[in-house]
Amino acid sequence: MRTHVDLPVSLSRDSAEPLTAQLAGWLRRAMLDGTLASGERLPSTRALAAQLAVSRTVVTEAYQQLYAEGWLDGRHGSGTFVADMEQAPRPPERGAYVPAPPPPPADVINLTPGDPWVRDYDAAAWKRAWRRAAELPPGDSPDPYGLPRLRELLADHLRRARGMAVGPENILVTRGTGNGLDLCALALLAPGARAGVEDPGYRVARTVFAARGAEVVPCPVDEDGVIVDGLPGDLRVLYTTPAHQYPLGGRLPIPRRERLLAWARATDATVVEDDYDAEFRYDVAPLPALYGLDPSRVVLLGTLSKILAPDVGVGWLVGEPGLLARIAGLREAVGDRTSGPVQQAVATLLERGDLDRHLRRMRLEYARRRAAVVELLGPVCRLRGDTAGLHVLAELPADMVPAVVERAAARGVLLDSTRRHHHGEPRLHGLVIGYGSASLTDVRRGCRILAGLIREAR
Amino acid sequence: MRTHVDLPVSLSRDSAEPLTAQLAGWLRRAMLDGTLASGERLPSTRALAAQLAVSRTVVTEAYQQLYAEGWLDGRHGSGTFVADMEQAPRPPERGAYVPAPPPPPADVINLTPGDPWVRDYDAAAWKRAWRRAAELPPGDSPDPYGLPRLRELLADHLRRARGMAVGPENILVTRGTGNGLDLCALALLAPGARAGVEDPGYRVARTVFAARGAEVVPCPVDEDGVIVDGLPGDLRVLYTTPAHQYPLGGRLPIPRRERLLAWARATDATVVEDDYDAEFRYDVAPLPALYGLDPSRVVLLGTLSKILAPDVGVGWLVGEPGLLARIAGLREAVGDRTSGPVQQAVATLLERGDLDRHLRRMRLEYARRRAAVVELLGPVCRLRGDTAGLHVLAELPADMVPAVVERAAARGVLLDSTRRHHHGEPRLHGLVIGYGSASLTDVRRGCRILAGLIREAR
Repeated sequence: MRTHVDLPVSLSRDSAEPLTAQLAGWLRRAMLDGTLASGERLPSTRALAAQLAVSRTVVTEAYQQLYAEGWLDGRHGSGTFVADMEQAPRPPERGAYVPAPPPPPADVINLTPGDPWVRDYDAAAWKRAWRRAAELPPGDSPDPYGLPRLRELLADHLRRARGMAVGPENILVTRGTGNGLDLCALALLAPGARAGVEDPGYRVARTVFAARGAEVVPCPVDEDGVIVDGLPGDLRVLYTTPAHQYPLGGRLPIPRRERLLAWARATDATVVEDDYDAEFRYDVAPLPALYGLDPSRVVLLGTLSKILAPDVGVGWLVGEPGLLARIAGLREAVGDRTSGPVQQAVATLLERGDLDRHLRRMRLEYARRRAAVVELLGPVCRLRGDTAGLHVLAELPADMVPAVVERAAARGVLLDSTRRHHHGEPRLHGLVIGYGSASLTDVRRGCRILAGLIREAR
Repeated sequence: MRTHVDLPVSLSRDSAEPLTAQLAGWLRRAMLDGTLASGERLPSTRALAAQLAVSRTVVTEAYQQLYAEGWLDGRHGSGTFVADMEQAPRPPERGAYVPAPPPPPADVINLTPGDPWVRDYDAAAWKRAWRRAAELPPGDSPDPYGLPRLRELLADHLRRARGMAVGPENILVTRGTGNGLDLCALALLAPGARAGVEDPGYRVARTVFAARGAEVVPCPVDEDGVIVDGLPGDLRVLYTTPAHQYPLGGRLPIPRRERLLAWARATDATVVEDDYDAEFRYDVAPLPALYGLDPSRVVLLGTLSKILAPDVGVGWLVGEPGLLARIAGLREAVGDRTSGPVQQAVATLLERGDLDRHLRRMRLEYARRRAAVVELLGPVCRLRGDTAGLHVLAELPADMVPAVVERAAARGVLLDSTRRHHHGEPRLHGLVIGYGSASLTDVRRGCRILAGLIREAR
């Protein structure tokens, strides 16, 4: 393993291209042409910044970008290395993380969307959180708003991670998005009321609303998100995923956000903003939440399911105190609550920064997987969706989809077609590729198989 | 502190009265006439059995009976003592249990029903359970039936504690009774379907069914439980509490159980059996569950809320595998689940016998509190309800109730009238006295104040 003391790179301050982009570009070329070989250690950010006479931020950002794209491999405290694209998954980082046992069907590569990666968690932090929770006695009368301490911490998290101007009085601790949707339905939808849901969209939203007696109205979505023009005037609620449309992957542009809220004000509707994976963006920062544009018209739902694990059972509902009081009352009336010890454990994870660290780590990991999908499937089909979240849409001719899904399954690759996400007849055909629950190696392997099948089918 | 080596008691084998009852009667008289003084240590069960030439079971049962009635005080490993009726609560048992901090309004005595006593838990067992749960990684795809290991353990618990012939295939892990009721509503009640609920009865059942669009039909209850004659023929579901009617306290007699199931078969209704506090009986064993009489017609709901703490968030739904499969599918469709780490912790509590031990301890504790209520309120009003559970009904003239509730509140005693438990106009008037969440001392103090107020009001 060689280490370059000085890299033969020079940057131009006169170029229109930012210094970070120049450096990243040079490094990419150097890795392609062999100047930098697999496994090679790069100079530290401090050393390279000094060599190039640039700020350390320039180097850090370039490294991060290349890490996200899968070019580099990093081990905390031991440097940054040129990645081997074909290598097995990295060994767990020293001490901090333990790998979980492999999933039951070990030979199946699951590229369906919805599930996050739960195997690289910080076992020490996880144990500490539950140990602290167990130091408290069981509670006798659960607070329908959730633990005050956790509400404080979640408000703080949302202020930092999503730039939201909220306090604990705006937070109600749910068990996750399903529970949050159900509480919205209880509070906002009388039997027979009309509830809009994006089409294609999140099935659970349709089911939860219908199970409370609402009439579900499919609302068409384009590449940017829900289409505001033509939204019916009699919807009591509109369910939407503006940060990263599920499953098309669009990010609702600011002007459309403004028009959506104007529509809600004019028709007295409430917008339910599902912010399920807004923490994961790999190019630019997420847009501010709809909620921030008009808190009186929006309820925002968040969840730990994507950030940490679906099995924990904690989420949050953000809204105005008056609405929260109504929801809390309904919760008590139907005996609905979030487990106390679970809230205590999550509070500890937030308080100690463990969740933030996990989030940063997973953001890089998912970015690498996404880059692998784009690299391998980009040449054979059109990919849609912003560089965000845990899935990407691969458009295919309608008649090709069933055969590809079937042949992939025969080769051990599970795929999800867009059909499942449509309320009625699909207008968009293809596959929703999820890279949350398969390792980078499996994502690569699965996408290579899939690319071959698409080529054959064309 | 004296210890009698030999008690001056002799039992007659020729008497019609069982040996246990003879011994218990002699001990009661001895404590009343001062032969046995407060704080005095009784002979060990082994020693007294040898002295009287009876089996040890005779002595153990007599001691348990008197313990339950509040005459005796026991410390594990250090003997059985004559209780001081006026003394402060016993100090925590050595090492094993730590007292929790007092509830916030320390000067208020809460005699409303519904909440259990959560302060005498086994802190070591509690911590061990969560520590073990944290040794497992978070789960990525929650099983809508619940953890297989927990389902096994719950089936085993129900076979032992309730004599039910069930296996894990009959168990679905819920978050508690509210969640169980909601899953029944989802699976069994189409919008507009008619659902019977005992009247007076559990408010949450009414609210949960109505919140799923069902028409709630109040079904009258008498001292023995729900009245079967006259049940409408068009109910899809009947909610009932046969083990210990809430709040009247009756236990549904066997012949009425048979008629109830005959009605369900004839009308194709499903009986939802809420077994919320069946673990707590202080005189005789509980009757077998309705479920056992006809599993095809009954869904049984159980919960840890009364046994351990409402804040844990685990319960169970017992039914036929076909119905459970339907419920599990609906659960997935609406994104409903029970937190994984919580299920792991509860499994450990069951597996190690911690929950059984807690249950035995609490059974004795509640029996003592109930005996105190009966002793102090029995002379001033009619008490209804079997010697079971965590509450008793005190009948009072309708016009007396509001004034008594108000004056008691002014003296720091919270009371609950029967009005809240009726669907329409109450037919029964009085107070539902809960002795779950107040200490024995507070139950005594509260009942003394209440008895005085009732005497004044007559």
